Amino acid sequence: MDRVVVVGAGFAGLSTVRHLQRQPVEVTIVDQHNFHTFQPLLYQVATAGLDPADVAYPVRTIFGREPNVAFRHGRAVSVDLGARQLALADGGQLDYDHLVVATGATTGYFAVPGAQDHAMALYTLADARHLRNAVLGCLEAADARPQDFDNGAPSFVVVGGGATGVEIAGALVELLDVAVRRDRLRIDRQRSRVIILEAGDRLLPGFAAEASRYALETLRSRQVDVRLHSTVAEVTGDGVRLDGESLRAAAVVWAAGVTVDGTLAATLPTAHGRGGRVTLQPDLSIVGHPEVFVVGDAGAVPWGPARPEACPQVAQVAIQSGKHAARQIMAQLAGQTTTLFAYHDKGLMATIGRHAAVAQLRRGPILRGTLGWLAWLGLHLVYLVGFRNRVVVLINWFWRYLDWPSGPRLIVADVEADL
Amino acid sequence: MDRVVVVGAGFAGLSTVRHLQRQPVEVTIVDQHNFHTFQPLLYQVATAGLDPADVAYPVRTIFGREPNVAFRHGRAVSVDLGARQLALADGGQLDYDHLVVATGATTGYFAVPGAQDHAMALYTLADARHLRNAVLGCLEAADARPQDFDNGAPSFVVVGGGATGVEIAGALVELLDVAVRRDRLRIDRQRSRVIILEAGDRLLPGFAAEASRYALETLRSRQVDVRLHSTVAEVTGDGVRLDGESLRAAAVVWAAGVTVDGTLAATLPTAHGRGGRVTLQPDLSIVGHPEVFVVGDAGAVPWGPARPEACPQVAQVAIQSGKHAARQIMAQLAGQTTTLFAYHDKGLMATIGRHAAVAQLRRGPILRGTLGWLAWLGLHLVYLVGFRNRVVVLINWFWRYLDWPSGPRLIVADVEADL
Repeated sequence: MDRVVVVGAGFAGLSTVRHLQRQPVEVTIVDQHNFHTFQPLLYQVATAGLDPADVAYPVRTIFGREPNVAFRHGRAVSVDLGARQLALADGGQLDYDHLVVATGATTGYFAVPGAQDHAMALYTLADARHLRNAVLGCLEAADARPQDFDNGAPSFVVVGGGATGVEIAGALVELLDVAVRRDRLRIDRQRSRVIILEAGDRLLPGFAAEASRYALETLRSRQVDVRLHSTVAEVTGDGVRLDGESLRAAAVVWAAGVTVDGTLAATLPTAHGRGGRVTLQPDLSIVGHPEVFVVGDAGAVPWGPARPEACPQVAQVAIQSGKHAARQIMAQLAGQTTTLFAYHDKGLMATIGRHAAVAQLRRGPILRGTLGWLAWLGLHLVYLVGFRNRVVVLINWFWRYLDWPSGPRLIVADVEADL
Repeated sequence: MDRVVVVGAGFAGLSTVRHLQRQPVEVTIVDQHNFHTFQPLLYQVATAGLDPADVAYPVRTIFGREPNVAFRHGRAVSVDLGARQLALADGGQLDYDHLVVATGATTGYFAVPGAQDHAMALYTLADARHLRNAVLGCLEAADARPQDFDNGAPSFVVVGGGATGVEIAGALVELLDVAVRRDRLRIDRQRSRVIILEAGDRLLPGFAAEASRYALETLRSRQVDVRLHSTVAEVTGDGVRLDGESLRAAAVVWAAGVTVDGTLAATLPTAHGRGGRVTLQPDLSIVGHPEVFVVGDAGAVPWGPARPEACPQVAQVAIQSGKHAARQIMAQLAGQTTTLFAYHDKGLMATIGRHAAVAQLRRGPILRGTLGWLAWLGLHLVYLVGFRNRVVVLINWFWRYLDWPSGPRLIVADVEADL
């Protein structure tokens, strides 16, 4: 049987494997983590609305009943396209007949000085835990030693006004409210600010103008300080420096974008486009290697045959491109020609907090407010991998909704912090 | 109003504060973690049966509705008994009129060479996560590189045959079974061993002989290699060295005991007994300082007026001694004399796995097997702090019971492991 190696257990990799299970191929899925991360909800882990385990699911569990699927825990470092061999960081090697690279992207700092050292990313589960510990830790520190935090008014800066930036800013405001009202942390809520910095002229670029406007109005009504046309010149240990102004911040969240540089896909000896995304054939294979596909965020996945520009790096594209690669592999095995990828845009969604989200569906009006929030909630629950997670996430959300004094506001570090 | 400072948010500290809430005193509870840890279930976090958040609960949430209770996040480093002042590691100070030291104990390595460096403790939530990551990580590594793990048969050594040792050994066996049967990890289950080393002549010292015998038989029937009269001479990076024999182990779990040394209680300038426990007056205060009480594991809490020897370091003693200290403070404020502590022994429990536990109640027969397990399950659910945790823990357990292919078998580190 032909051996298919899928690298990456994100949306794209899982989608590929799902469409190869119970097919006459031997599939190995490789990831440096032993779990899939449901990235759209990482911001809730970072703001203590959900637990890490609510948004993570072991890969072995997902494919536990699929005899033709094996999992290999490890970090892939390079591909020998000639020998058809994948090399892993622990010295292991995997031979393949078909390779699907679904290694996603990483946080892009765009060479902004200090950003990588001082800002906190929100792309992996470890990032989310790290950010949560930092935010909760600094609220406790401001309660205990107000003189060190602008007289008890710690502020938070979010860099980037895309969906991730909007979501984390909205959730940080809710967390501050809970911290003061329920946890009785003695911070000066009036002077504590959440500031969102967007270089462009509107929030949620890529969404319709109406959605951008709604996000701006809603965030401002919730006392988020939204600054458009604001470019960060430097991130320091104290906050950020803009052109001509400095903002003090207890924590800087970096939600300004992603890059494929530094991932396995970047090492492929083929053309790369913006953000390091791999240039693809219309069937999502790479030039000269019909047995190698790149799917999800890692590839410049074309919208379709008549529209070669790259799709946005969102979950829907990852899921659809993964499925497409799986289908092409089966077609090749059957001696058929491959078909061209075409993206079916189902819409975009972003949430700003309780009872406030925008859902821009392909047809029909833009949903917003409570209706948008319910649409967002339902869709995310449906897509969450695994029934157990769905139940637990639902309970957690239900609790938050009822305003019960719960929520996993824990500061849990691997290493005991030196308090 | 008099200021009461309670140091430590374990069972003893929480119990103290619970009995001071809504009383005419100003209470501050201090802990280096912002959460209470339900220690009896840490072994389940370590073996991936429960999530860290299932056994932890934020202190601020627990006392969110108690206006006379404040939380201070910080590590207490010393007490000035003359000035009645507690010093914190971050430079903060707390003045008190009454002090309750409930700082518990830490893992005791008893100067065994290599133990602190190579063995893994199971006393804090960070310990439990660390152990889980190590165990799951080594199972994955053994799957990927069997040659590095005794040809695919990693073994685990548990040092100490008390309740913690018995529980973790039983849970490790179940984890290995799940790893092979459900997760299809390619490890040699027949040759993979869980070995428990106990220096004394029986497991569960402190329990009745019948309970010890049941634990021994049950663990052996589940293929645990139980070795009595086994003293560890050294722990190495490869395993443990006994007198005349070496055992290879992928991980060594240290469940051999605890010590008060290294904690705040150890710094008190008063007499200390075995394991560093603070010698106490019959009312649980310290000599010459009727305003200072030591409760829980940190103190040598006497059984009662007629029986001055120290109680075991278990949750019941912590809860009862904490309550007693709170009552004495209120008595002192009312100008009354303090009363002597007397421990009401409600029994002991230990679980060995699904459908197997011993519950040795004060009266009546020793419950074991499924009945013991149900008693253990019910009691732990009742005592788990917070309704939300109870519901989620119940769901997790229900799932495990039904043998569904779930369970939080995640390897989540703060720092990306260098795979």
